[in-house]
Amino acid sequence: MCNACVMGHVANRLGRRGILAAIAAAATLPTPAAAQSLRTSFTKVVDLTHTLHPNFPTYGGDPAIVIEKIKNFATDGYNMNRLTYAEHVGTHFDAPAHFSATGPTVDQLPVQHLVCPLAIIDISARAATNADGQLTPDDITTYEKKYGRIQAGACVALRSGWDANVATPKFRNGTASGAMAFPGFRPDVAQLLLTRNVAGVAVDTLSLDHGGSKDFAFHLAWLGAGRWGLECAANLGQLPVKGATIIAGAPKISGGTGGPGRVFALV
Amino acid sequence: MCNACVMGHVANRLGRRGILAAIAAAATLPTPAAAQSLRTSFTKVVDLTHTLHPNFPTYGGDPAIVIEKIKNFATDGYNMNRLTYAEHVGTHFDAPAHFSATGPTVDQLPVQHLVCPLAIIDISARAATNADGQLTPDDITTYEKKYGRIQAGACVALRSGWDANVATPKFRNGTASGAMAFPGFRPDVAQLLLTRNVAGVAVDTLSLDHGGSKDFAFHLAWLGAGRWGLECAANLGQLPVKGATIIAGAPKISGGTGGPGRVFALV
Repeated sequence: MCNACVMGHVANRLGRRGILAAIAAAATLPTPAAAQSLRTSFTKVVDLTHTLHPNFPTYGGDPAIVIEKIKNFATDGYNMNRLTYAEHVGTHFDAPAHFSATGPTVDQLPVQHLVCPLAIIDISARAATNADGQLTPDDITTYEKKYGRIQAGACVALRSGWDANVATPKFRNGTASGAMAFPGFRPDVAQLLLTRNVAGVAVDTLSLDHGGSKDFAFHLAWLGAGRWGLECAANLGQLPVKGATIIAGAPKISGGTGGPGRVFALV
Repeated sequence: MCNACVMGHVANRLGRRGILAAIAAAATLPTPAAAQSLRTSFTKVVDLTHTLHPNFPTYGGDPAIVIEKIKNFATDGYNMNRLTYAEHVGTHFDAPAHFSATGPTVDQLPVQHLVCPLAIIDISARAATNADGQLTPDDITTYEKKYGRIQAGACVALRSGWDANVATPKFRNGTASGAMAFPGFRPDVAQLLLTRNVAGVAVDTLSLDHGGSKDFAFHLAWLGAGRWGLECAANLGQLPVKGATIIAGAPKISGGTGGPGRVFALV
C-alpha cells in the first residue's frame, strides 16, 4: 500500500471516536506550574538536531527541501537563499494540528511545554533485530520501576539508535527487502503516557508510528490529545536516560502543523 | 536610495580590507571551553521569538513567508503546509556567510556558541526620541563599569524596546516622514566586541545596522569576523540586563546564510 493511500485511509479506518476521546483528555494537559519540576542546572549542551539538506530522508520519499541561492556576496553584497519545503522534514515537530481538526498549531505550544524533563526509553537492542520494533507499555513500566514515575510535563523519547542510519536507505527502508520499516511507539502507549500527563514525545526515526504502520494510530491518539511530537531526533545516545532537560525549539510559524526546529538537551 | 541599491553598493563602498581584517580576527573566536562560564541554572524560560506570518515586517518590504495548505485533515487524514521564504524573515539568525564570501554557514555554528551568557544593553530611552539611534562603544563601556566586563563567548543584545512596534509600520519606518528608521549597532562597536571575544549579537529591530544605514558596515565587520547575529528578537525587556542564558536555536539547514529559529532565554 502506498504511503499516500495509507494517509488517505486514516480517517475512515479509525473514525473520529478515538480522536474525540483524546481531545477530551487534552483538558488535563499539565499547566506550566505542574511542568516546572525539571532539572534547572546543567554543564553540557547536546545538539539533538540533524542537518537538513535536500537529500535528507523523508517519510514520503520526496526531496526534503529546495534551497535556491537568490543573492550572491560577490555581485549583490550579501548571500541569501530561498527555501521551500513541506513542514515535516528534517529533525522536526508535529503539532497537535498535524493530526487533528482543531488542535493547537505549532506556534501555540506553550513555552513551558517545550522546555521539560527528558525521559529516554532505550529499545535499541530490539531495533537491532527488528527494524519495525515498537516501544510498548511494558517498556514504560520497566523504565519506571528502575528510574521512578515519569514526570507530568516531561518529554518521553524513544531511542532506537536509528539516527546512525540517517545517511543510508535503511533509515526509511529498514528491512532487507527494502520495505518501509523503522521503530516507533505502539499506539497503546499513548493512553499510558496521557495518564502520566506527558507533554511531548520524541523518536530518532522518521515517524512516531513505526514504519510498517498502516493507520497512524499513535499520531492520532497522541497529537489528537493536544500533545506534541518530535521526529528524527539525533544523538539521544549521548544523554543519560533520566535527568536531561530538552530544549524543544519548535518553529513559531503562524498556523503551522509542525516543522523543522532546533533541539538541544542540557545535561 | 532604494534598499536594493544600498545592498548592491556595499562591496564597492567598503572594499575588502575591513572584511579581511575581520576574518583574521575570527581566529580568536572563543573555544567551547572559553565559552563555558555561563549561568547554568534557571527557574524561568522567556520566549524571545515573534510569531512569523506573511505580514510580519521585512527589511525589503516584501511578504515574509508564503504558507500553502497542501494537506487537509478532513480529506487527507492529516494537515500539512508548504512554506516558502527567503531566509532572513521573522526572528531570525544571520550566519557569517550572510555577509562574507567564505564564512561559516548557519549549520556550522558550534552549539557552544549558541548557548551562552546574555548581556543586554538598554538604549530604549535614546530610541524613544531618535528612531534611528545607535548603540555606541560608550554604551558598552558604561555597561561594563556597572556590570563588569562582558564575557568571552557571550551574546550582546541591543534592547531598544522596538519589539513593541512589531505590528505597526513604525517597526520598519520609524520616522514621522515614513523613512526607513530603527535602532542598530554603530559599526565601530564591532571592533570593541571582537576585543571581548563575543560570539553573537542580537537586536530587537529588523537589522543589526540601524535603519538609516547605507553601507551595512556593522554586518560586514561582525559577520565577516565569523560571528553570528540575531534580528527581530522579542521580549528582551522581560530579562535582567545581566545573568540570563540565551538558547539561540538557529536553524540547522545545510549551507544556510541564516534563517528563522526559536530563541529562548533561561533566567
